[in-house]
Amino acid sequence: MLAAVLHGAKSIRLERRPTPALSAGMVLLRVRRAGVCGSDLHYFQHGFCGSFVPTRPFVLGHELTADVAAAAPGVKNIKPGARVTVNPARPCGTCDYCAAGRGNLCPQTIMLGSASTAPPTDGAFAQYVAVRASQCHLLPPAMDDGVGAMMEPLAVALHAVKRPGPLGGKRVLVTGGGPIGLLVAAVARAFGASLIVLSDPLAGRRKAALALGIEAVLDPASPALPQQSRSVAGDGFDVVFEASGAPAALRQGFALARRGRTIVQIGTLGADEIALPANQIMSRELQLLGSFRYGDIFEEAIELALSGRVKPEPLISAVYPLAEISRAMEQALRKDAVMKVQLAVF
Amino acid sequence: MLAAVLHGAKSIRLERRPTPALSAGMVLLRVRRAGVCGSDLHYFQHGFCGSFVPTRPFVLGHELTADVAAAAPGVKNIKPGARVTVNPARPCGTCDYCAAGRGNLCPQTIMLGSASTAPPTDGAFAQYVAVRASQCHLLPPAMDDGVGAMMEPLAVALHAVKRPGPLGGKRVLVTGGGPIGLLVAAVARAFGASLIVLSDPLAGRRKAALALGIEAVLDPASPALPQQSRSVAGDGFDVVFEASGAPAALRQGFALARRGRTIVQIGTLGADEIALPANQIMSRELQLLGSFRYGDIFEEAIELALSGRVKPEPLISAVYPLAEISRAMEQALRKDAVMKVQLAVF
Amino acid sequence: MLAAVLHGAKSIRLERRPTPALSAGMVLLRVRRAGVCGSDLHYFQHGFCGSFVPTRPFVLGHELTADVAAAAPGVKNIKPGARVTVNPARPCGTCDYCAAGRGNLCPQTIMLGSASTAPPTDGAFAQYVAVRASQCHLLPPAMDDGVGAMMEPLAVALHAVKRPGPLGGKRVLVTGGGPIGLLVAAVARAFGASLIVLSDPLAGRRKAALALGIEAVLDPASPALPQQSRSVAGDGFDVVFEASGAPAALRQGFALARRGRTIVQIGTLGADEIALPANQIMSRELQLLGSFRYGDIFEEAIELALSGRVKPEPLISAVYPLAEISRAMEQALRKDAVMKVQLAVF
Amino acid sequence: MLAAVLHGAKSIRLERRPTPALSAGMVLLRVRRAGVCGSDLHYFQHGFCGSFVPTRPFVLGHELTADVAAAAPGVKNIKPGARVTVNPARPCGTCDYCAAGRGNLCPQTIMLGSASTAPPTDGAFAQYVAVRASQCHLLPPAMDDGVGAMMEPLAVALHAVKRPGPLGGKRVLVTGGGPIGLLVAAVARAFGASLIVLSDPLAGRRKAALALGIEAVLDPASPALPQQSRSVAGDGFDVVFEASGAPAALRQGFALARRGRTIVQIGTLGADEIALPANQIMSRELQLLGSFRYGDIFEEAIELALSGRVKPEPLISAVYPLAEISRAMEQALRKDAVMKVQLAVF
Repeated sequence: MLAAVLHGAKSIRLERRPTPALSAGMVLLRVRRAGVCGSDLHYFQHGFCGSFVPTRPFVLGHELTADVAAAAPGVKNIKPGARVTVNPARPCGTCDYCAAGRGNLCPQTIMLGSASTAPPTDGAFAQYVAVRASQCHLLPPAMDDGVGAMMEPLAVALHAVKRPGPLGGKRVLVTGGGPIGLLVAAVARAFGASLIVLSDPLAGRRKAALALGIEAVLDPASPALPQQSRSVAGDGFDVVFEASGAPAALRQGFALARRGRTIVQIGTLGADEIALPANQIMSRELQLLGSFRYGDIFEEAIELALSGRVKPEPLISAVYPLAEISRAMEQALRKDAVMKVQLAVF
Repeated sequence: MLAAVLHGAKSIRLERRPTPALSAGMVLLRVRRAGVCGSDLHYFQHGFCGSFVPTRPFVLGHELTADVAAAAPGVKNIKPGARVTVNPARPCGTCDYCAAGRGNLCPQTIMLGSASTAPPTDGAFAQYVAVRASQCHLLPPAMDDGVGAMMEPLAVALHAVKRPGPLGGKRVLVTGGGPIGLLVAAVARAFGASLIVLSDPLAGRRKAALALGIEAVLDPASPALPQQSRSVAGDGFDVVFEASGAPAALRQGFALARRGRTIVQIGTLGADEIALPANQIMSRELQLLGSFRYGDIFEEAIELALSGRVKPEPLISAVYPLAEISRAMEQALRKDAVMKVQLAVF
Repeated sequence: MLAAVLHGAKSIRLERRPTPALSAGMVLLRVRRAGVCGSDLHYFQHGFCGSFVPTRPFVLGHELTADVAAAAPGVKNIKPGARVTVNPARPCGTCDYCAAGRGNLCPQTIMLGSASTAPPTDGAFAQYVAVRASQCHLLPPAMDDGVGAMMEPLAVALHAVKRPGPLGGKRVLVTGGGPIGLLVAAVARAFGASLIVLSDPLAGRRKAALALGIEAVLDPASPALPQQSRSVAGDGFDVVFEASGAPAALRQGFALARRGRTIVQIGTLGADEIALPANQIMSRELQLLGSFRYGDIFEEAIELALSGRVKPEPLISAVYPLAEISRAMEQALRKDAVMKVQLAVF
Repeated sequence: MLAAVLHGAKSIRLERRPTPALSAGMVLLRVRRAGVCGSDLHYFQHGFCGSFVPTRPFVLGHELTADVAAAAPGVKNIKPGARVTVNPARPCGTCDYCAAGRGNLCPQTIMLGSASTAPPTDGAFAQYVAVRASQCHLLPPAMDDGVGAMMEPLAVALHAVKRPGPLGGKRVLVTGGGPIGLLVAAVARAFGASLIVLSDPLAGRRKAALALGIEAVLDPASPALPQQSRSVAGDGFDVVFEASGAPAALRQGFALARRGRTIVQIGTLGADEIALPANQIMSRELQLLGSFRYGDIFEEAIELALSGRVKPEPLISAVYPLAEISRAMEQALRKDAVMKVQLAVF
């Protein structure tokens, strides 16, 4: 089969690789569509992602729509021919975290297209990929391939939006206007937030947010930020979702949250220590909650998109054939101009 | 009356001052015992406390046992002659925070012995102090004056211990072995924590903690810390209470907490930004919760001490007459040797 | 002034009464619109409501839009001429329940148009009524009088929907298709429920629910109920809101809820004991939560209706002049044909 | 091997049976001690238990201490010779309930010594029993066989005490002074409840409760109950644990709980509908929560008993050899005189 193999920073090459073999409980997927995620871009730019350093060349990609090409003997629920999206995280299922329903924290998780394990696990920027049948979720016919491959980022957003408790009537700030930030905004709206404001230093992203129906946008670089925030959100926001990974955005979240309220960190802040006005956590009794990936919520993500309450389509900026992987990656780096870039494989 | 007036860093003088007048709803208290808090020491050492800079000389002190000397007309529940302890925080009672039962966040709070308001509010290092009758809580005869003046720090600990949800069966680390840290440990034990470990760089405080029944202590400066933590708490703590205000202790808390678990910040971290491995909040899905003062929980604190489930007595290291205020403050600064220092007034 | 005075069962008469006097903190309201609530109908039908038996004739009505006619000296936020809706419940503000932010449980609550106190408190089926300024909430110009008088039932629904925690992605059943049930359904939708089903034995109400956009309706009297429920909600509902007050509906809620899930009781079940399959609470680990009135959430209700996320207008079936009070009450009793009946006063 | 086989009401006979065979993942246990539970007594008295009707004679018993006699090939953590206690519930591990960490609600659960499945699953009133290795929990040497066989009822109590959220400072009523009720009281104390009161109609049980350190007891049959409750708990209890299964006790719980507070149903109320003053759930905004078995909390139960914070020993009233099974069962029915009866097997 053909696969886009990452060899190091800015070096990704289409190569012939053996089609993955099937072991018990697994299915072989023929990839139709695969999305480029922020972590794929980190690997592409730097050759590594945070503390994850690949020990050999590997295949990126963990957002996908695929057809089931074959299933190992004994697999029942997922039949060849079915069109599915995939939960790329496979926790062990037996550790304390898994038993307590927090499989997203399982240290033994195997993640598609990631160097979190050694050797790395090959992902979906390839013609075929093998996963556990239990990682597959049937796509309804009304959902197209592009939206199907958005279920993974939507699961990230859905998990994050559930972290701070009920959002009904709450004033929400999202810092970071990329695909995750916009999906968080959309889910927060669907879950009852009364006001959604988005902050991003890129004018193109603020414009895109307004076009998608966000009530107000803030420019974090503007000296008028405090007044602008006050004019839209009074004495502050009830929940801040930090979806940019920029330390300055997190600091801004501290300043713009109301006393006693909550900041949810979704973006990757990098491996180094960052400077924070941490005393405010105590003196203003804030909550700072992390949100990491997602649990078993793909069915809920599919339902949310299918019902039209969240609309991922407008976030798909461009679709390239797998053969143009390098161009697709370069394009995806132009954050002011594009949102989600996807690869059409079969 | 006589009052110990703070004039600036290391400058505190006993002076004659007019006895406070009574306005509607208030009672005049004749102070019996007053404790020296960490914030009193900050004012004494630096002349200010974090962002609170006094606009005129004022009287410190907000932990007290007192007799009611007089009550304004119309005050019903608190009679002259009664012996009381005092909730030194008086929130406005009508703002959004107050209406939602979170009066500890009320921005209009008037705090005894504090420069959080301008002018500052005089406190309890004096023969008399006036407070709202509703701030007074009757002390049962079986509770002595010293313990009565410990109800305020116990309220701080009680509020903090309630922040992270149920502690039953949880492994708890307390960083900082001063009076607040030890009271937090005691309340956490009374509320079901299965393991309590205390960390402090001062050998004297670690020794004191062991003498008070803490199972194990850790030296944060020891290179063997990670192994020692593992030997007592396996893969980490469920809840870390940070009661020292040392940035290094908070960073240690990140390292020693289990995935998905909670850090409660109680200590004052200072006004500046501090460096934190904040990405772990996301990648290990931690919760970092602030804890600020307390709500209306003095009755519960009194009950907790009265039942013997928490024993504040052993934390009282020394009692000085009000006239020896400077010596008392200097003594209280010797953290390796003393816990709580109190002033005997009448 | 003119007021509709309840003298006993089916006996309500327009009479001249003195305009209420103003005491400190109060405002005199000139009523524009007043809604007829289920409890008003109970008083009208039986002369009493549950355990509330009036000790003298009194004026019903607690859902209203009004103009401020006069304000006591010292009242600041609410000016004469302002158009307001009213939180008819006035808790004491100082008891344990009030201090903990649960004023809806305050035993000293004074309720407009209710015999919960002795003597009863006169309500809004009159030209004028006096309330505390703090009970008034300014209506935005874009909200008409009829919708303004719907803020009280919307507050009931809003409080109830917040009881079971986040609704995002949850399957919801509402039993009882009157105004409260339909408002609960609308708020649950706005707060992220993925499926809303309504159950009512009256065909007219089921039809109205479908017209208002509810996905599916169930007839509780149908022998096919279990299969119908399964076809729309699989193995059961995540949250059941019981808004009818019919014991059979609550029993149905037990049968249709999933294991481990929640039933919220909103409707008045009457004073007597009712038979319930209570062992299921244990064996299926259900939660049965009561919901009583509302706290201080009128601003949120106004915002919810103003944003269009909940639309109360279609629930207003008919508006009668105050002079036709008896006809209005009779009309409101015809539950199959009408939803909310209101009185136009000025 | 020898096993005590239940043939019907009051008919239990020691018989020779084949020793259970081992399949993959299982271990063969040689039973040392087995406790008689309330459900065992139901089967013994009536031949069935609630809706569970055995389809053939079977072996009761699900509270046990045992030695591992043999392990299937591939079993790693549990070695022959180890002394263990057993979680008798084996959920499927893959359904929605299991994935969400609520395996106690798994409809496919196989329960030792229970007719909840057809055919029934043989239990521990026998010389040998086979279970999954993952159901076994190593007993520390300091814990004797009798206490080891109390870990199952302690797990029931532990799960129940966790249902209503933090107990710190709460006033608790336990209705029903059998082993479960007394263990609930002990765990509630260890988890911070400030007052524990027990109610039971049997004088012997009230006396036993006082001897075990419960502060106060109530006789539910006394006409002075309301005043007695008020004298110990003021305006009511914060949490009521109903551990008797008597409908009258649940009704009493409604009367004695404070507004807005919680009742936890642990006892089996029987299959029929029971009469409840259900309107109070709404009008006093109560929570009625079920508690069913336990999740994976045996390690925590062992730790709780090992640390001495909960002491199950005094609840063991009598130990009989397996051969005297009928006498043991008859003895266990004398609830006024005995608490827990156990069988010594090997």
